[in-house]
Amino acid sequence: MKPEELSAERLREQIRSGDWQTPTSGAAQGYVQANLVMLPKKHAFDFLLFCVRNPKPCPILDVLEPGSFEPSIAPGADLRTDLPRYRIYRDGSLAEEVSDVSTLFSEDTVSFLLGCSFSFENAMLAAGLPIRNIEEGRNVSMYITSRPCTPAGPFSAPLVVTMRPMTPAQAVRAVQITTRFHLTHGAPIHIGDPQQIGIADLKKPDFGDPVTVRPGEIPVFWACGVTSALAATSPALPLVITHCPGHMFVSDLRDEDMTIF
Amino acid sequence: MKPEELSAERLREQIRSGDWQTPTSGAAQGYVQANLVMLPKKHAFDFLLFCVRNPKPCPILDVLEPGSFEPSIAPGADLRTDLPRYRIYRDGSLAEEVSDVSTLFSEDTVSFLLGCSFSFENAMLAAGLPIRNIEEGRNVSMYITSRPCTPAGPFSAPLVVTMRPMTPAQAVRAVQITTRFHLTHGAPIHIGDPQQIGIADLKKPDFGDPVTVRPGEIPVFWACGVTSALAATSPALPLVITHCPGHMFVSDLRDEDMTIF
Repeated sequence: MKPEELSAERLREQIRSGDWQTPTSGAAQGYVQANLVMLPKKHAFDFLLFCVRNPKPCPILDVLEPGSFEPSIAPGADLRTDLPRYRIYRDGSLAEEVSDVSTLFSEDTVSFLLGCSFSFENAMLAAGLPIRNIEEGRNVSMYITSRPCTPAGPFSAPLVVTMRPMTPAQAVRAVQITTRFHLTHGAPIHIGDPQQIGIADLKKPDFGDPVTVRPGEIPVFWACGVTSALAATSPALPLVITHCPGHMFVSDLRDEDMTIF
Repeated sequence: MKPEELSAERLREQIRSGDWQTPTSGAAQGYVQANLVMLPKKHAFDFLLFCVRNPKPCPILDVLEPGSFEPSIAPGADLRTDLPRYRIYRDGSLAEEVSDVSTLFSEDTVSFLLGCSFSFENAMLAAGLPIRNIEEGRNVSMYITSRPCTPAGPFSAPLVVTMRPMTPAQAVRAVQITTRFHLTHGAPIHIGDPQQIGIADLKKPDFGDPVTVRPGEIPVFWACGVTSALAATSPALPLVITHCPGHMFVSDLRDEDMTIF
């Protein structure tokens, strides 16, 4: 079976057994993929508050009770083993990448699953809009902006955005389409001049790869889930776990479940 | 100045000084009013999680840091004094109603402000849709349904709904209009047969007053903020504070700020 035709459950089984160790982009098409953050119960209220206060970069799909690893959006799944790759942060710094966090997970661990832009990318492709990074076989361009998120307790971060170039008419259509997907970043946060949000050079993204902006196209910017990882690691907590970029949790939700209308 | 013409700030001043002691319905038209829940920091994560898991009855407008009483949605306001009437629950039971909670508020208190349906009622009236309880000078009809909310920690509650009767064509229009107001309960959760959601008799609401359902009209049901008060008092915590029904917190947000598009 082709990766894109796998069910979410079957893909998670392959990941859990070690048969799938690569990024999840494009796999199990139509199923909602999610950013993961795991941190201690002591800081869970403040981090949840950060997400609530910054819903565009950090749209909450699921938050588990302390010590629980089976999300409501994927019954039978195990967040300790069902992502292909995790990042372990110790005292605020990346310490290692692993494929299983069972030994690090405890009764004290709270897991957050946050929306990612794959859901609205499928809807944009279906509408005939260009996703330049897919066309060019690259990672999406991501930039740290000059806009601060609203902090909560010890958690703070600048807003991180993704950028997709398109014509002005396509940008209008993209606003309409992504507005429906309010749990996967929703409508753009900015259109046009990158300097207005503190981006000096589109050719030098802070994460991901640069893509071609064609004549007559404008850059369109959406809030990005990487913001949540920056926020989670902004205080130097002893232990924070996130997914490794591109290696997402694949839920049983369908893209269309994410729409507000 | 007529009550409806007051600014939110001026209305809060009148409330704080004791000059305004009655319900806030219809006052400071166009400003977003909110349900209030105050509870101890120890239970704040679980209650916030309850709201996140049940966004239709409990849409989060603002959550304050422990010990803070000045909401971001109304700079200069004081949640301890700026509501006309509060309810004090002790060990899960209503103990008293007061007009100032300063002596009960502590560094340990976390305040939640949740959306209420006044915002979308204004939009429905502007669209020429009937709000029967306003026409008849009564409180909106509210019912406890057979649908459980998703619990979180010790917090649980049945979904409470408001009901407004209208023709089927008006119900379609009401779905469109209230969909925009996703932070003030959003689209209806049910249309038509009350028994499907466990309501035995429309003439006997659990809260508020009955209203007339005319021939050719169907009942339309929206999630209701009273759900949050039932949830907050579902575990017998030593102290929980809520607004007194109808005596809401009036924020500086405008109704149109609440729309997703």
